[in-house]
Amino acid sequence: MNQRLSSAENGTSVGVTEVSDVQNAIEERLTQTVMNSFDGCQDERLTFLMKALVRHLHAFIRDVRLTEAEWNSAIEFLTEVGHITDDRRQEFILLSDVLGASMQTINVNNVAHGDATEATVFGPFFTENSPRIDNGGDIAGGAAGQPCWVEGTVADVEGRPIPHARIEVWEADEDGFYDVQYTDNRVAARAHLFSDDDGRYRFWGLTPTPYPIPHDGPVGRMLAATGRSPMRASHLHFMVSAPGQRTLVTHIFVRGDELLSHDTVFGVKDSLITDFAEQPPHTPTPDGRQLGEQSWSRARFDIVLAPDTIATQPAAVHAG
Amino acid sequence: MNQRLSSAENGTSVGVTEVSDVQNAIEERLTQTVMNSFDGCQDERLTFLMKALVRHLHAFIRDVRLTEAEWNSAIEFLTEVGHITDDRRQEFILLSDVLGASMQTINVNNVAHGDATEATVFGPFFTENSPRIDNGGDIAGGAAGQPCWVEGTVADVEGRPIPHARIEVWEADEDGFYDVQYTDNRVAARAHLFSDDDGRYRFWGLTPTPYPIPHDGPVGRMLAATGRSPMRASHLHFMVSAPGQRTLVTHIFVRGDELLSHDTVFGVKDSLITDFAEQPPHTPTPDGRQLGEQSWSRARFDIVLAPDTIATQPAAVHAG
Repeated sequence: MNQRLSSAENGTSVGVTEVSDVQNAIEERLTQTVMNSFDGCQDERLTFLMKALVRHLHAFIRDVRLTEAEWNSAIEFLTEVGHITDDRRQEFILLSDVLGASMQTINVNNVAHGDATEATVFGPFFTENSPRIDNGGDIAGGAAGQPCWVEGTVADVEGRPIPHARIEVWEADEDGFYDVQYTDNRVAARAHLFSDDDGRYRFWGLTPTPYPIPHDGPVGRMLAATGRSPMRASHLHFMVSAPGQRTLVTHIFVRGDELLSHDTVFGVKDSLITDFAEQPPHTPTPDGRQLGEQSWSRARFDIVLAPDTIATQPAAVHAG
Repeated sequence: MNQRLSSAENGTSVGVTEVSDVQNAIEERLTQTVMNSFDGCQDERLTFLMKALVRHLHAFIRDVRLTEAEWNSAIEFLTEVGHITDDRRQEFILLSDVLGASMQTINVNNVAHGDATEATVFGPFFTENSPRIDNGGDIAGGAAGQPCWVEGTVADVEGRPIPHARIEVWEADEDGFYDVQYTDNRVAARAHLFSDDDGRYRFWGLTPTPYPIPHDGPVGRMLAATGRSPMRASHLHFMVSAPGQRTLVTHIFVRGDELLSHDTVFGVKDSLITDFAEQPPHTPTPDGRQLGEQSWSRARFDIVLAPDTIATQPAAVHAG
């Protein structure tokens, strides 16, 4: 008898499912037959992907001893995910996000390199053609929220400042919505700027606030059924690019945010948690801006870009 | 450095992707964080399923070093599968079928037991309320095809005949279509009968012919892109039930069919391949039926049912 220690491997209670050698051979042979069915594929990478998909999918079914009722539920769930997805709503991406598959793909495609700043999920709210602001400008464009002064440097992994790096920033307003989620075509809480001759940058944004991912569909129901929150930890998006450097897509998160430990898309990395220091009303601002009775915050984010000679991921070596 | 021998494991060319210890730790930690996110789920089985799903999904992404472009393609593919699926077309089931996931689920839920006849995929064409025929009756109901005499016994694993077992049979006509695929509400090439007092059964059906699964959608394009055929091997469906016995859903396949080795849904098992012996015109029929200039075939299928005390699958034991 082969013991499939599936529960133990999953870190839950210790569980053993006994599968006879005969049964094991039947299941193993099927997996191999399905993998071999892709041998006629002319695209080597696609062959590799399909075989790996089959291997892992079958291992899942066998490890959990998936019941036919559970298989049916999975088919129904995917059907619902498909039917709610349209040009404005992408429930498959949400599903990938809440299963950590998006974040794991980001990890795989942005391998750690020296002190290079870590990447995180891109999210669905970036837009091309954001307004350009000068250093020290304001990205808010009328979006509601507490003003937040953000400054830092852009450097390479040798510590050399990178002048004129393109910095795209975007975030939700204090109600938890991005401009594109409104129907009035507003452009707000997003902009791009360039680091100065010394690799420094600074801008006014908004103190980030938490918001839920869309959770009125099947993914939201899955989160509810499993006791998970649909909330994202408060964050401010960055995309930073410069010639010769690997483009960085990341966020900064707010230290102290209760959601840091259970961001629903698993975007949080310790190195990206940043102090957003609260400044009482009348605290002098860095650029002399007058905010009246308004409190504000300030954050510092020093960015390190990996060279673009570091592949986004290590290429699989195919020999023989 | 950790070597991920993913290509070799997949049985393709030997390939090694080197992942640094730091990178490996980042990826491993994410997988663990996502699995832990289900710790608040009150349903023990659902928790177990979600954790296993995450573990296998992440292992796939890491093993193949999934690129962001490939992730995008996967999202687009699933979106297309979702959009073509409606009340009449279930592309997610087709996808599960051509990846062998349906057949593996059948395997898991019908564990091998003594000489019990092996199960195979149910397929989408069974209908409730099929016509009843007497032993020796004809299931064709006007469906076109070569007549085929099918006979056999129903017994338990001790070899004892099972009288009055319910035998549902259904199949495609010679054009490769089931009755429900026509729009005229015909009921043809399907029926149910009962084994006689000695556990024997016999009926007239049609010699099975091959047909393609629906392949004008994304699943069909995937098959084409990977050099696979959309054809199913010729087969005749059975569902056999009797009190005290595990219900058997299976097919018989035609020995000599070129498609046996690459049935697109992987339903073929050696034990289910049956001789359909060709009978020239004017060969006397078993029941004296006059077929004129028509050739016919005959097949024998002896069915063995497992007791229903054998669980459809071994229950996972959760201890501690």
